[in-house]
Amino acid sequence: MKNELIFEGNEKKIYATDQPNQVIFHYTDVTVAYNNVKRARLKRKGILSNRISAFLLGYLNKCGISTHFIELVDEREQLCRKIELIPLEVVVHNRMCGTLASKLGVEDGFKPANTIVDLCYNNDELGDPLVNSDQAVALGIATYEELEKMFSMARKAGELLKELLHKAGIELVDAKFEFGRATDTGEIIISDEISPDTCRMWDEATGERLDKDRFRLDLGDVIPAYSKVLEKLETL
Amino acid sequence: MKNELIFEGNEKKIYATDQPNQVIFHYTDVTVAYNNVKRARLKRKGILSNRISAFLLGYLNKCGISTHFIELVDEREQLCRKIELIPLEVVVHNRMCGTLASKLGVEDGFKPANTIVDLCYNNDELGDPLVNSDQAVALGIATYEELEKMFSMARKAGELLKELLHKAGIELVDAKFEFGRATDTGEIIISDEISPDTCRMWDEATGERLDKDRFRLDLGDVIPAYSKVLEKLETL
Repeated sequence: MKNELIFEGNEKKIYATDQPNQVIFHYTDVTVAYNNVKRARLKRKGILSNRISAFLLGYLNKCGISTHFIELVDEREQLCRKIELIPLEVVVHNRMCGTLASKLGVEDGFKPANTIVDLCYNNDELGDPLVNSDQAVALGIATYEELEKMFSMARKAGELLKELLHKAGIELVDAKFEFGRATDTGEIIISDEISPDTCRMWDEATGERLDKDRFRLDLGDVIPAYSKVLEKLETL
Repeated sequence: MKNELIFEGNEKKIYATDQPNQVIFHYTDVTVAYNNVKRARLKRKGILSNRISAFLLGYLNKCGISTHFIELVDEREQLCRKIELIPLEVVVHNRMCGTLASKLGVEDGFKPANTIVDLCYNNDELGDPLVNSDQAVALGIATYEELEKMFSMARKAGELLKELLHKAGIELVDAKFEFGRATDTGEIIISDEISPDTCRMWDEATGERLDKDRFRLDLGDVIPAYSKVLEKLETL
């Protein structure tokens, strides 16, 4: 069923399948940060990300938010709907951390009264700049209607995941969503992954960071943290 | 009538008056660019900016877009409504130039099919970063309602000025608007100035730049260009 490799990234490979509108996502053990400047191989990382992502994408599907996830294939692979990728990221921030906090001069972890939803142009050469809808439309990346749909889906998904993770004792600090146009129906669906690689997740009881910041900030114990996220999700 | 100095910037000074809700804006001959790194004194620049700004702010007032401008006092000064400044800039782009073009990887002067309206946080230390409404609200700078009002006023003002300048043979390439809360009524009004210092203006016949880019890019003839803008406006 798994056919030729059609995309090879650092953290993921994508394979064609016998079905023209389905692909297989393979999660590697590589982790990268800071626009690929920082890089490591962490044993079992791909397994954990694959399972957490399948859990969270599957949950959104059940809640009526369409994602590309179809089903788990094995510990490193999942079957997904094929999409035409939209090179934008919609990031939902319940707290302001990392580059967002430093860019706006607030303390890392600052919790505003409102939820912030950002749009970034996924372009390594340009450093993934923050853009707005007018700019994305001017660049021909998406239409206003598609952007409205993406913002609405990201806000709903952010809210659903925040509530779900809270039940598992995890605070969802921020969550990055990528989108694509499904090659069969053309509809906008959530793509890529949802995991501690793409979301900041803090242990509500201890404040411990359970996400990629452990790698970015050299805090150590990346794999134990990701394992803890999966264990907590599996209690639900 | 002119009382004590209450603000001294590079390009402008603001004086109190006998009226608690009115101030006098004094335009100096200083010009600065690139976050005050580049600086010069250009004879008559303050006179030209004061007169152009009075003309354009006055025009918006007549069209029903409230600005702080009340009347010209003399060649360097204008009487204005006093405001509480909102540290945001709303920039309307009919073409993508300068930092916007380089940030998004398009050719300088690229003309998209739509109009781009940006929001920037006016903060020298942070380098005036692009922000969105959620971020501005999170930082406590403005409410969502105020931001909606500012966007709507900036879009309308940009359209009105584009049409007006076109009649004078000038293309309005972009326009930066600042806003404040009037100290008497609390309403949101356009503040600061509207001139070749804050807008890109090109001669429609020749493509010649008639704005601060002549200074930024060392093209020379800054004062003749600003004079040409005023002359063209005075033909209307």
